[in-house]
Amino acid sequence: MDKKQLVAAIRSRKNYLCVGLDTDVDKLPAHLKKEKNGVVLFNKAIIDATKDFCVSYKINTAFYEARGLQGWKEMEETLQYIPETHFSIADAKRGDIGNTSAQYAKTFFETLPFDAVTVAPYMGEDSVRPFLEYENKVTIVLGLTSNKGAQDFEMLPCCEEHLYEKVLRKVASWGTPDNLMFVVGATQAQELAHIRTIVPDHFLLVPGVGAQGGSLSDVSQYGKNAEIGLLVNSSRGIIYADSSEKFAEVAGLNAKALQQEMAGYI
Amino acid sequence: MDKKQLVAAIRSRKNYLCVGLDTDVDKLPAHLKKEKNGVVLFNKAIIDATKDFCVSYKINTAFYEARGLQGWKEMEETLQYIPETHFSIADAKRGDIGNTSAQYAKTFFETLPFDAVTVAPYMGEDSVRPFLEYENKVTIVLGLTSNKGAQDFEMLPCCEEHLYEKVLRKVASWGTPDNLMFVVGATQAQELAHIRTIVPDHFLLVPGVGAQGGSLSDVSQYGKNAEIGLLVNSSRGIIYADSSEKFAEVAGLNAKALQQEMAGYI
Repeated sequence: MDKKQLVAAIRSRKNYLCVGLDTDVDKLPAHLKKEKNGVVLFNKAIIDATKDFCVSYKINTAFYEARGLQGWKEMEETLQYIPETHFSIADAKRGDIGNTSAQYAKTFFETLPFDAVTVAPYMGEDSVRPFLEYENKVTIVLGLTSNKGAQDFEMLPCCEEHLYEKVLRKVASWGTPDNLMFVVGATQAQELAHIRTIVPDHFLLVPGVGAQGGSLSDVSQYGKNAEIGLLVNSSRGIIYADSSEKFAEVAGLNAKALQQEMAGYI
Repeated sequence: MDKKQLVAAIRSRKNYLCVGLDTDVDKLPAHLKKEKNGVVLFNKAIIDATKDFCVSYKINTAFYEARGLQGWKEMEETLQYIPETHFSIADAKRGDIGNTSAQYAKTFFETLPFDAVTVAPYMGEDSVRPFLEYENKVTIVLGLTSNKGAQDFEMLPCCEEHLYEKVLRKVASWGTPDNLMFVVGATQAQELAHIRTIVPDHFLLVPGVGAQGGSLSDVSQYGKNAEIGLLVNSSRGIIYADSSEKFAEVAGLNAKALQQEMAGYI
């Protein structure tokens, strides 16, 4: 799925919800902890229960890598199960010198055929460019994140603006709103109106609603553009909402509640 | 191997060479391209030929991830083959919010028991802290890199100094010279003397000698401290110096030449 198809899906399904599959084996419901492929069974049940209420799934690669070969296999199987009607994101936050970033782009656009991957901007243009060279794929660069550490460097004053503003402005000049998006944390909702003056046309991937304390109402009010331009991610608030055998049912209900709230903002 | 043992190894073996295993399957010698486990055979031959002339090996995770499950397996097998007498580095450039960085730390300190991992600083303290919490492990944070893109953000003026200087200063306050090192590119040798005024006691991991154009003499002159404090990485200049069946022999000779030059600087 490319960005144009994503916009169409948002319009027709009346939501801009991304469900984050940050699946931690220690947090699986008891009956799945016993299963050898519990992570995959969990993810498949979550996808089945939520797919009617979201347009995207985001796999947080760290939770899979931490389990080594087994985890990598689970990441592959989960990606294969994400319907083609949904925008798939590898939340990998990669970035290195050009020849190495080219290998990461190959990893997440070919070996694992995701629609999009998150990328860290610190090393500059040649660390981002290899991702942008893929047609019909989307590179999502970190702008202003939702964590406390965002104050350390992202919010540093640099020549009359903050570092993250420089990053948004400069990175935007390397791609187009069709192949480039930005991560902007929901806990920074008050900054969203200002961010829209810098990158009016790009999609923003917004984590931090729910467990991290961001407000969907604020994010929608300050972040929306003519194409909606938002993908709001919820991970823990959906996938760990219930730890019994009813986990998928509750995940579906929570996703549906977000979908319905979003329908009101579209 | 921890940092104290690394310092002892540098003293006794009279070098501070790190050999970078950025092993690209497309660049294997013809006779190894045919083999199913060609990458592992190649890495083992390189390690056998170079281990007497280096103190460290650095695995660039991108080149392994790009090959999916097979690549991850090759990364595991290569790590297992690195002698305990050598400091093993996962060049992974990870970094995310705290609970996710904790998973990456688990990946590269437990699941794959490396001695050190490289980490990107953009997201700030809580993205770095989970790595530093491991005893006897080393976190290597990006400072000033060797690529052209370093000009984009790392060299940005921020309140009377460059961003990378702020990064070095602030990150140094989160750890100690025993659990924290920095990446500083060799192509920035003129900056090394200045960098030593900011982080006099930390080890610097210096890529960029050889293929990227950095000078070992300059790096050693400007970067050395009382503990030597340098790990100079060479990847392409050693592992791809020859593409015939003699690749390992030539790699060994090139590593030996660097070792001997380094012995003169110690």
